[in-house]
Amino acid sequence: METPLLQSYLAGAWIGNTPAQILCDAATGAPVASTHAERPDFEAALAYGRGPGVRGLLSLDFQERAQRLKSLAKFLGENKELLYRWSTCTGATRADGWIDIDGGIGTLFAYASIGSNELPGGNVIHEGPPIALGKKGHFVGSHILVPREGVAVHINAFNFPVWGLLEKFAPSFLAGMPCIAKPATSTAYLTEALVRLMLQWGGLPEGSLQLVIGATGDLLDRLDGQDAVTFTGSATTAATLRANTNLITRGVPFNAEADSLNSAILAPDVNTEDAEFDVFADEVVREMRVKAGQKCTAIRRILVPRRQLDALQTRLRQRLSALVVGDPRQAEVQMGPLASKAQQADVHSRLDMLRQVCSTVFDGANLPAMRSVETGDGAFAAPTLLMCEQPLQAEAVHEVEVFGPVATLLPYDDIDEALALAARGRGSLVTTLATRDPAIATHAARRAAVHHGRILVLDAEASMESTGHGSPLPYLKHGGPGRAGGGEELGGVRAVVHYLQRAAIQGSPTMVGAVVGEYVRGGERIETEVHPFRRYFEELRIGESLLTHRRTVSEADIVAFGGISGDYFYMHFDAVAAAQSPFGQRIAHGYFVLSAAAGLFVSPAPGPVLANYGLDTLRFVKPVRIGDTIRARLTCKRKIDRRKTDAQGRGQGVVAWDVEVRNQDEELVASYDILTLVAKREGS
Amino acid sequence: METPLLQSYLAGAWIGNTPAQILCDAATGAPVASTHAERPDFEAALAYGRGPGVRGLLSLDFQERAQRLKSLAKFLGENKELLYRWSTCTGATRADGWIDIDGGIGTLFAYASIGSNELPGGNVIHEGPPIALGKKGHFVGSHILVPREGVAVHINAFNFPVWGLLEKFAPSFLAGMPCIAKPATSTAYLTEALVRLMLQWGGLPEGSLQLVIGATGDLLDRLDGQDAVTFTGSATTAATLRANTNLITRGVPFNAEADSLNSAILAPDVNTEDAEFDVFADEVVREMRVKAGQKCTAIRRILVPRRQLDALQTRLRQRLSALVVGDPRQAEVQMGPLASKAQQADVHSRLDMLRQVCSTVFDGANLPAMRSVETGDGAFAAPTLLMCEQPLQAEAVHEVEVFGPVATLLPYDDIDEALALAARGRGSLVTTLATRDPAIATHAARRAAVHHGRILVLDAEASMESTGHGSPLPYLKHGGPGRAGGGEELGGVRAVVHYLQRAAIQGSPTMVGAVVGEYVRGGERIETEVHPFRRYFEELRIGESLLTHRRTVSEADIVAFGGISGDYFYMHFDAVAAAQSPFGQRIAHGYFVLSAAAGLFVSPAPGPVLANYGLDTLRFVKPVRIGDTIRARLTCKRKIDRRKTDAQGRGQGVVAWDVEVRNQDEELVASYDILTLVAKREGS
Repeated sequence: METPLLQSYLAGAWIGNTPAQILCDAATGAPVASTHAERPDFEAALAYGRGPGVRGLLSLDFQERAQRLKSLAKFLGENKELLYRWSTCTGATRADGWIDIDGGIGTLFAYASIGSNELPGGNVIHEGPPIALGKKGHFVGSHILVPREGVAVHINAFNFPVWGLLEKFAPSFLAGMPCIAKPATSTAYLTEALVRLMLQWGGLPEGSLQLVIGATGDLLDRLDGQDAVTFTGSATTAATLRANTNLITRGVPFNAEADSLNSAILAPDVNTEDAEFDVFADEVVREMRVKAGQKCTAIRRILVPRRQLDALQTRLRQRLSALVVGDPRQAEVQMGPLASKAQQADVHSRLDMLRQVCSTVFDGANLPAMRSVETGDGAFAAPTLLMCEQPLQAEAVHEVEVFGPVATLLPYDDIDEALALAARGRGSLVTTLATRDPAIATHAARRAAVHHGRILVLDAEASMESTGHGSPLPYLKHGGPGRAGGGEELGGVRAVVHYLQRAAIQGSPTMVGAVVGEYVRGGERIETEVHPFRRYFEELRIGESLLTHRRTVSEADIVAFGGISGDYFYMHFDAVAAAQSPFGQRIAHGYFVLSAAAGLFVSPAPGPVLANYGLDTLRFVKPVRIGDTIRARLTCKRKIDRRKTDAQGRGQGVVAWDVEVRNQDEELVASYDILTLVAKREGS
Repeated sequence: METPLLQSYLAGAWIGNTPAQILCDAATGAPVASTHAERPDFEAALAYGRGPGVRGLLSLDFQERAQRLKSLAKFLGENKELLYRWSTCTGATRADGWIDIDGGIGTLFAYASIGSNELPGGNVIHEGPPIALGKKGHFVGSHILVPREGVAVHINAFNFPVWGLLEKFAPSFLAGMPCIAKPATSTAYLTEALVRLMLQWGGLPEGSLQLVIGATGDLLDRLDGQDAVTFTGSATTAATLRANTNLITRGVPFNAEADSLNSAILAPDVNTEDAEFDVFADEVVREMRVKAGQKCTAIRRILVPRRQLDALQTRLRQRLSALVVGDPRQAEVQMGPLASKAQQADVHSRLDMLRQVCSTVFDGANLPAMRSVETGDGAFAAPTLLMCEQPLQAEAVHEVEVFGPVATLLPYDDIDEALALAARGRGSLVTTLATRDPAIATHAARRAAVHHGRILVLDAEASMESTGHGSPLPYLKHGGPGRAGGGEELGGVRAVVHYLQRAAIQGSPTMVGAVVGEYVRGGERIETEVHPFRRYFEELRIGESLLTHRRTVSEADIVAFGGISGDYFYMHFDAVAAAQSPFGQRIAHGYFVLSAAAGLFVSPAPGPVLANYGLDTLRFVKPVRIGDTIRARLTCKRKIDRRKTDAQGRGQGVVAWDVEVRNQDEELVASYDILTLVAKREGS
């Protein structure tokens, strides 16, 4: 049987006809695929991304790209078994593959939601609120975010061939930036299969995704300030890439997420009979087992109160002894091999370094399963638990990362010592803190936040739904300071913003409003004959405005409103106390002002405004006194076409309205945004 | 007269006794001060910052540091004349000095406000909202920002010796990070005078500010991942520093703000008789004159419609001819010399490069004033206007920056060509667009946002209050992509966040709530006997909660509420239309639900809750039907001690309350935060 030849997809074509490096099955050592020998023309690939790629992506808007992500995620979900078959070759069990494949697809779904719910239509994000830059209202400032007109180069590690690509692709695609994905070579066959599926789906705009199999050659030397590089891998490789002269002189943004010596801390309050003790032991063993410990987030250092050291050792040894290691094609296997012989050699040599300063608590090489697999051609590594008696004096346990199923127990005397030991990793992606005590969690997590990108506080309650120490989540930041690379990925919309360019906009309210795409107070308004609530979504223009009739607020209003609401607060009803207050007299209820304003601008008959579903940033700026006369101004502030329809298939969009309520002296008394759903005239 | 010896302030002591380099007056060439020859011990300086510096700053909280900034700003304002005296030696006129000195003090005031209004108490910022990570509510995630426990190294350029230090110091101080400031040597006497004043003020915690006069030696080689470097200066120096091996391997954050070839665009719609034409010409001349063009933001390229080229040339020549150049000690002088002879030589040599490809439209060397000063020992440079006929074909005008009173006219044929020319700067700090047309502004500013950090849209209205093309403002981002360094400074609270470390926090709602310092729904509440509105600020605990009595909503409520509010929307009053709506029946007003909830939880008698001044993130989650029974839960969510007192000297704080209104089936019908001012028991 011929070994499949992997190809790069660049400048719109699959390239590669000549085999080069052979890639082998992690468990059996059998050839799986080969890379290609042809050197890609990266200048052409970049031109393809910056030209057709940018144009194609920006012919869609944030909302449409979010919809594409959702469709793509569905398509991949329907075809995922193909990916699982390739995944097995990497040494991944079905459970490992689930993290990579279903985890990657889940990340696409999450970014589809983030785009749909948190981003506007169009390709400009207004990052407000606008700020007055002068005293008279003629000069204001705000910020916008726009897609960078370059190419994102995504460089990934070998351990998550699917998730790695998708978690970088989703936010850059949503941002409107084409990408060139460069997976690690040893498991590139799985990523190539993924990219073929993604292209087969057919919904990706031309040029939005390219793939490099093999080396990046002179790619980084050809980037400029509009491009971006995101990297996941070792700290050493990150440092090498970051030192690239072209990246430095061109100011190319470089985001790194590097392996780190993550820790897990069993807090001093947890006793052996507490549920948290077991939960902690389970978490440690899971992190050793999953992907055979080949995760940048895996627990490398287990910090345990010295008095609990023996108990925890015993608990961990019990669980580790039960591990079934072997070929992931066998259903009963819980832990597969490492991804390659190169990784195996690396793990063995680093383990030797740690053994110089650590004792061995558990050596999986003695497991029956290990003895049966280690003689074959697979890249197996034995789960190994070490212990370092005096970790404050040790160096290697805080510096040498064994990228496999290996962790080291480090006893500590008090929680601050544990935190100091965790910090010795010089910046980590994640730490887990098992505790029952919110006070310990508060102290420890806040201190640990300085050195960690993510902190999992694990108690019995959280363990019921915990996604685990090792799992980055789409809505939470992934990345840590220092050794962990100093970068940020995921974190919800934050990851999208990384691919956008922020610009401050200054000018008159009219001009700033036009640029940011929202009505800015003080800017030109459109006074229309038709009540704006009677306009369909498509017809409404930003700035369309209604100045209502007036209403004089009387004592009777206060009395009636107290009766209906039940709110008899002294400022409204106790003339004696109100006279002593800063306002010196009774005032109307704030909620009366809000309700009366709604009465002033309501358009009672059925119409395009389907619902007022919320209200933001309400401020009662000045009190309304008995005898004051108020009126409201309602101005169309922002429109978002979510490209969605209701259950009956009718289209609708979100419209935010700026509301100003002023008194007879034109003083602002209340200010807020109301949020409405407005029907489209033309269906969807 | 002896030349004063400048000293570094490091590790708590002023060091330097031996003169080294002599620094000269820009206008006269007379010696002003000398640097010191002693080499600082940077390891000791860093230890001082990381130890006493961090401890001192974190013994205060965000609110207290904001107050310190305000007091410091006041003190500097009272003593600013001392700074103005030194400023004159740099070649700055009084107006130039105002930008540097009053601009710097204004930045301190602005950051005092930002801290007071936008940051919490304590030293942890909760960057919410919390996100559900499981379906049953046992596992949630959120983010916190905490001060980095390292030292910020602030490296500045020679042109703004006061503002440069203060605009970097203010946000890092507010964030709680000590700094080592390194001003450019040629004007370091002014920065040294500033630092002496700041220390003399006496309110800076020990170790929070250190000063380096002269070279940085091995300082950067000693930084680690908790430290940070911020740099302002040339793109070349930025690239050199960024390539530092230690910064790269340790993952030290590096923020660069570099000179760029900024442009100003006269849009095609502006005619010579429009006010915008004059406003544009004034802006160009001002940018050439101010600081003798030595601003990283100055206009280097003037983009003008080809048909307006002659008219603009004439207008600019008129204005430039009237410039009075000379010693800034003379009141009538409008433009001083460059900062040093080295700068003068640099300007001359770069001007020669540009003259190879440009014609000279105006040569200030022929001005009478120039002829009288250019023979002396000052570092004068003549204002010079060049023109490049075919800028699309030219390279040098988009690459060679003359850091002096020099700009080049570049004619264009249509607005997209103008934008393409502006983008040829490969990333700039700022561009100005003079236009009368919001549609042009929208198109051009959004396109320009890709390549520029800030965009000034200049029309007649904005010009009434415009702070100008060249002025970075505390509330707006300063920094641009690519050549401009790719960094960000200022931008309000964004600059503070640059000095904080972000960590994701996962766990049960109780644990996450404890760590972020806010009540998180689903977390433990404190049900108290006393109504929480009757507690003083100090007594209130996060999580204190009141579950109110119930209220059945009847048709009479809807009728009464319609009467008092005037809101007769069909969903409340038209049984026919309401029956056809998705809800199928009449429902209560959303504002009635809000008002009734207030009636349920109000505590009518005078008490510690002084005012309900606002409401955030109100969502009407489900409709309330006739016959439904609602009740509210009010929980203390967040407390901010602004350390402020009212007019009577009584202390008060801000308390945000989480409100959930649920129906008889425990379904959430409305959800919001209310904002209150709560008195302290113990005065301030």
